[in-house]
Amino acid sequence: MNEDQLYAMRHSLAHITAQAVQHLWPDAKFGVGPVVENGFYYDIDLGETKISEGDFKRIEKEMRTIINKDYPFERSEKSVDEGIGWAEEARQPYKVELLNDLKRAGTTVAKDLDASEMGTIAEGDAAVDTVSFYTDGDFTDLCRGPHAESTGKVGAFKLMRVAGAYWRGKETNPQMQRLYGVAFATQEQLDQHLTMLEEAKKRDHRKLGKDLDLYTTSPLVGVGLPMFTPRGTILREKAAQLSNQLRKNRGFEMVWTPNITKKDLYETSGHWAKFGDELFLVKSQETSDEMALKPMNCPHHTQIYASQPRSYRDMPVRYLETTTDYRDEKTGELGGLNRVRSLTQDDSHVFCRPEQIGAEVNGLLDCARELYGTLDMKLRVRLSYRDDSDAYLGERELWDSAQAQLKEAVLASGLEYFEQDGEAAFYGPKIDFMATDAIGREHQLATVQLDFVQPERFGLTYTDEEGNAARPIMLHSATLGSLERFLSVYIEHTGGWFPFWIAPEQVRVLTINDQVMEYVSEITKVLDATVGMKPVKFNEVRYSIDSRNESLGKKIREATAWKIPVQLIVGPKDVEAREVSVRTQEGEQKVPLDNLSTYLKEL
Amino acid sequence: MNEDQLYAMRHSLAHITAQAVQHLWPDAKFGVGPVVENGFYYDIDLGETKISEGDFKRIEKEMRTIINKDYPFERSEKSVDEGIGWAEEARQPYKVELLNDLKRAGTTVAKDLDASEMGTIAEGDAAVDTVSFYTDGDFTDLCRGPHAESTGKVGAFKLMRVAGAYWRGKETNPQMQRLYGVAFATQEQLDQHLTMLEEAKKRDHRKLGKDLDLYTTSPLVGVGLPMFTPRGTILREKAAQLSNQLRKNRGFEMVWTPNITKKDLYETSGHWAKFGDELFLVKSQETSDEMALKPMNCPHHTQIYASQPRSYRDMPVRYLETTTDYRDEKTGELGGLNRVRSLTQDDSHVFCRPEQIGAEVNGLLDCARELYGTLDMKLRVRLSYRDDSDAYLGERELWDSAQAQLKEAVLASGLEYFEQDGEAAFYGPKIDFMATDAIGREHQLATVQLDFVQPERFGLTYTDEEGNAARPIMLHSATLGSLERFLSVYIEHTGGWFPFWIAPEQVRVLTINDQVMEYVSEITKVLDATVGMKPVKFNEVRYSIDSRNESLGKKIREATAWKIPVQLIVGPKDVEAREVSVRTQEGEQKVPLDNLSTYLKEL
Repeated sequence: MNEDQLYAMRHSLAHITAQAVQHLWPDAKFGVGPVVENGFYYDIDLGETKISEGDFKRIEKEMRTIINKDYPFERSEKSVDEGIGWAEEARQPYKVELLNDLKRAGTTVAKDLDASEMGTIAEGDAAVDTVSFYTDGDFTDLCRGPHAESTGKVGAFKLMRVAGAYWRGKETNPQMQRLYGVAFATQEQLDQHLTMLEEAKKRDHRKLGKDLDLYTTSPLVGVGLPMFTPRGTILREKAAQLSNQLRKNRGFEMVWTPNITKKDLYETSGHWAKFGDELFLVKSQETSDEMALKPMNCPHHTQIYASQPRSYRDMPVRYLETTTDYRDEKTGELGGLNRVRSLTQDDSHVFCRPEQIGAEVNGLLDCARELYGTLDMKLRVRLSYRDDSDAYLGERELWDSAQAQLKEAVLASGLEYFEQDGEAAFYGPKIDFMATDAIGREHQLATVQLDFVQPERFGLTYTDEEGNAARPIMLHSATLGSLERFLSVYIEHTGGWFPFWIAPEQVRVLTINDQVMEYVSEITKVLDATVGMKPVKFNEVRYSIDSRNESLGKKIREATAWKIPVQLIVGPKDVEAREVSVRTQEGEQKVPLDNLSTYLKEL
Repeated sequence: MNEDQLYAMRHSLAHITAQAVQHLWPDAKFGVGPVVENGFYYDIDLGETKISEGDFKRIEKEMRTIINKDYPFERSEKSVDEGIGWAEEARQPYKVELLNDLKRAGTTVAKDLDASEMGTIAEGDAAVDTVSFYTDGDFTDLCRGPHAESTGKVGAFKLMRVAGAYWRGKETNPQMQRLYGVAFATQEQLDQHLTMLEEAKKRDHRKLGKDLDLYTTSPLVGVGLPMFTPRGTILREKAAQLSNQLRKNRGFEMVWTPNITKKDLYETSGHWAKFGDELFLVKSQETSDEMALKPMNCPHHTQIYASQPRSYRDMPVRYLETTTDYRDEKTGELGGLNRVRSLTQDDSHVFCRPEQIGAEVNGLLDCARELYGTLDMKLRVRLSYRDDSDAYLGERELWDSAQAQLKEAVLASGLEYFEQDGEAAFYGPKIDFMATDAIGREHQLATVQLDFVQPERFGLTYTDEEGNAARPIMLHSATLGSLERFLSVYIEHTGGWFPFWIAPEQVRVLTINDQVMEYVSEITKVLDATVGMKPVKFNEVRYSIDSRNESLGKKIREATAWKIPVQLIVGPKDVEAREVSVRTQEGEQKVPLDNLSTYLKEL
C-alpha cells in the first residue's frame, strides 16, 4: 500500500468514526477530521455529554458495523450556498462556519487554518464557488477527499485517546473533544505499532530519568529548566566529549562565550528584527543596557573571528563550543528533556574560503556519520532548500551555488537523503540529519548549515593571496543538536541500558560475604588503573562497591534495576581462582583478574 | 616600622601634599585626604585650574622643602562651631560641609561616607561636640590623626597620578582632583614598590591577553563579557580541570544546572530580599514568568539534593559544577578579566551531617593548598567571622559553633591565617584564601563558607540512624574563585610564560630547512603519543610546526614572542644524531628523540 492509499484509508476512518459517533449520539456536532501521523482524529462536540475511553469499545463496534456494510464513498459537488443550506439542515454549526469563511475569503481562510484541518475543506486559488462532499451510507461530510473505495477497505484501526481541543485552536472558541485513532494497512502493522507504543511508554525518558536518577526539575526553578544529577551529568559530559572529540580531530578548537549579549549584536546579525520577540530579555538594574540571553552562538563566534586579522593561510578557522542557549518556549510546550528552555548545544562554526566549503561539509558529514554509528542509530539526511518566498536573506545566486555544493557533498557521503524546499534557515540552506532509534522512530538532531549572510553583516574578512580583503563563508554545525534533546532520544533509544563507555555507573562490585574484601581491594586497583580509549579517550572506570550485609540476590536485583552494564560478583571461589564473575545483559562469565582490564576496555 | 607608624607617616604625607599645593595655589579648596594601600591621596579643587602630571615635580619639590623644615605636627581641639568658623575663615567650603554634617548627625554621617574618607574627620558614638585639628608650620587641617612626630619623619614618597573624583563619590557633586602618592619607610622599599609597579604594567593581563590572543571583547556584546579564543579557552579548561580533579579525588561529583531560574528560588533562599536589586532580571515574552540570571549556584544545587530521599549513609553528598554566574556590575567598574559580569565559578557544595564538618573543611583546605602549591603561589587564609550587627541570618549559637570548627580546621592545616570580624557572608562564617603572586601582590580567590541557613530555608533533610528527619549542614567552596578573575591574576603571575601543563601551545617545532621534514613527522608521532599526567591527567601535547621558508632566527623570535614554553629546533645534524634541540626559558639542550616523551612528561 503506498502513502496515498494509506492517507485515503486513514481519512476514510475519520469519516467512519464521526459516522459511528453520530449513530450513538445523534446530536453530535462535528468540527474537522484530518489525517495525522499514524492515524487520524475527529473533533466532536456532544454538548454536556463527554466521550470517555470507556466509550471506545462501543464506538469501535459501531465502526466495524459500518465497515462490514462496505458502503462505497461517493463524491458530489454543491455550490457553497447549497453546502451552507445542507449544513444548516444537518444542524452542523461548525461546518456552517467553515463554509461561510470559504465563501467570504477563499484560500486565505483555508491557509489561516492549521494545516491538519485543511483535509476536510475544499481549497482553491481564489474565493471558492463549489465544494465537494463525500457520502458513505447514511453519512455525508464536507470533504476534499480522497477516500478509500468503500468502508470495507480501510485496513486495521484502533481508537487511542480522547482529549480536549479548542475549535480551530483558539482558546476563546468552544472546547470540543478530539478523538484520536491509529490505522494501518494490516492488523500485523497495527499490532507492531501498538507494541512500539507500549515499548516507548516503558522507555519514556521522563520515567527513566527519575528511576535512574538522571535529572530533576523544580517548581522553584521553573519548567523547561532541567537540572542534572551526578549520573545525568556523566551522560551529558561523555556525549559531548564524543561529539567534540570527532571535531577536534578535524581541526576544531574550543572557544568560550558568555550566555548574554547586548542587543546590538543581534541588531547587526539580523536576528533582532527577525526573532526579537522570541528572546528572553535581560534587564540590567545598574545600567540602561538592553540585553538578551543568547538563543544561538554564531554572532558571538563572529566576534572572536573578528578579533584578529586573518589571512588565507589561516583558513579555515574552526570554532567549537558546548554552551547553553535559552529559548523562550511557551511553558505548555515544555516537558522532560525533549523541549526545554535551556538547550546546551555542541555548536561549531567554520569560517572558510569559498573553495573550502566542500571539504568542510564532507568533514562534518563524517563526524555525524561516525557519531551516530557509535550510538547505533541509523542516519539519513534532509537537504533543506529555500522556497520562492522572500523569507530568506542573501542573494539568490549564492543560494543556488550553496545548495548545489551541499548536495554534492551528501552524494559523495553515500548517506541516504531526500530534498525539501522551504526548510532552509533564513540565512542559508542546510543539511538536517534524521536518526532512527531502536523502536523505529526518527528524530532530527544534527545539522550542517551554510551561511552567506552573517559574514556580510559583521563585515568579516580575510586577506587573500593577492592581499585583498575577501569575505569568508560561515558553516554552522551541531552534531548532537542540543544535549538535552539528544538525551531524551538516547535514553529512550537505549531504554536506560547505556553502553559501557557512557553508563554513569559502569561497574558495580557485588560481594558474597566479607571474607572477599581483601580481594575486592585488588579488583579496585585494577579498575582504578583501567582507562578506556574508545569511543571517547581517557575514560576512567566509574564503579561502586556493594559490600552491604545483604543477599546476593538482592544486590543483583538492585544493580539490575539501576541498569549497571557490568556487575562483578565476587565470592570465595573467585578469590581462590583469582577471577571474577562478570554479569552483563548478555549473561554471566568468568574473567581472570589479570584479563579484567582488557575485558572492560573492549566492551 | 610597624603598621601604625606607616599609617601615621602616610597620613602626614597627605597633609604635606595639601600644604604644598596650598603654597603653589593659595586658593586651593580641600576635600578629604586618607591613607590608602601603599600610600595616600588628597582630593583638591583648584576651580578652573587643573593639576597635571607635569606639575608633580614642583609639588614634590615644595613637599621636600616642608619636610626639610621638620615642622612638628601639633594637635588641638575646637568645638564644632569653632571649627566651622575656622573653615569659613580659611575659605574651605568642603570642610565646612563636613563639619556641619558632623554637627547635625554625628556618627551616622561619618558612616555614610566612604570608609577611606573617614580618616580625616572626627568620629563619635553620638553627635559630635568637639573635633581635632593638626597643624604643621603654616598648615592646619581638620583631622582625627594620628600623625608622625614632625614633617621630617615621613619616609620616602612619590606622587603617582591625578584623577577626577566626585566630592563624596556622588556624580551630582562637584568634580575634584584626586592626587595620589605612594610612601614607604625607606627609599629602598619605595624603589622596590616602583619596580613592582613597572613589572605589573609589563604583565598587565589586558595587554598580554591581546598579545597572546587569549580573549577578546566586543562593543556589540558589551563590557564585562569577555569571550575566550582557542588559546584562552585552553587556559580556562586546564585550570578548571586541575581544580575539579582535586575535588573529584575527594568524592565530589559533577552536576549541571541552568543559568536562569524563576525568582521563586531566591525568594525561598532569602537572596531575593537581600540582593534582588543587584540581579540581572530575565523577562519572558511568552509567559509571565519572573526570572533572573543566577548570581550563585547554591540554591540550584539544593534542588538536586532535594530531588531524592537521603539517608545518613549517603552523607556527605558533594556536588561540583563549573558554571557561569552573572552579576550586574556597574559598567564603569569593569575592565579586563578582573571584574566581569560573567563569572565562571568552580563551585562546589557539600551537604553533610554536623559531625562531618571538620573532615570536609579539612579536605577543602587540602584542595586549596595543593592547587596554589601547583600554581606556585603562597597562600594564607582569613577566618571571616560575623560582627554584632543584625546583617546575618541564623542563630547566634550556630555561628559560634561554626566559627570554632573553621578555626580548628585552619589550625590543623598549618596554613598561615588571620581572623577578621564582619567579613562573613550573611548565611555563615567563611575562610577566604589570599594567594600571593610572583610580584608580591595578594589576591583573594578561593573560599570555603559554612551555611546553616539555606538547608533550613529549603527544608532539606536526611534520615538519621534513628529514622528521624535531620537537617544537613551546607558548605560552599570555590577553589579558583571565578575562572576569569583567577586568569587575570594568573596571567600576571606568570607574565604569560605559562607552565608547560597549561600553556595553550606547549611545543613549537622549528625547522631549519625542508630536508628535515621526514624526521619532523617522526617527532610529531612522539608528540601525538605523549600524554601528560601531572598536575592534570590525560593532558595531550598541544603543538604546532613552523616549517615556513623563514630564517631560524625569525622563527625563534616569533615563538618566543608567543611565549611557547618548549621550542624544538630541528636541523640536519639533529636528524643524523636522532635528537632534538630543546629551547626553553632555561636555555638550550639536546634531547634524544627516544627520551623526548619522558622529558616532556616531566616538565
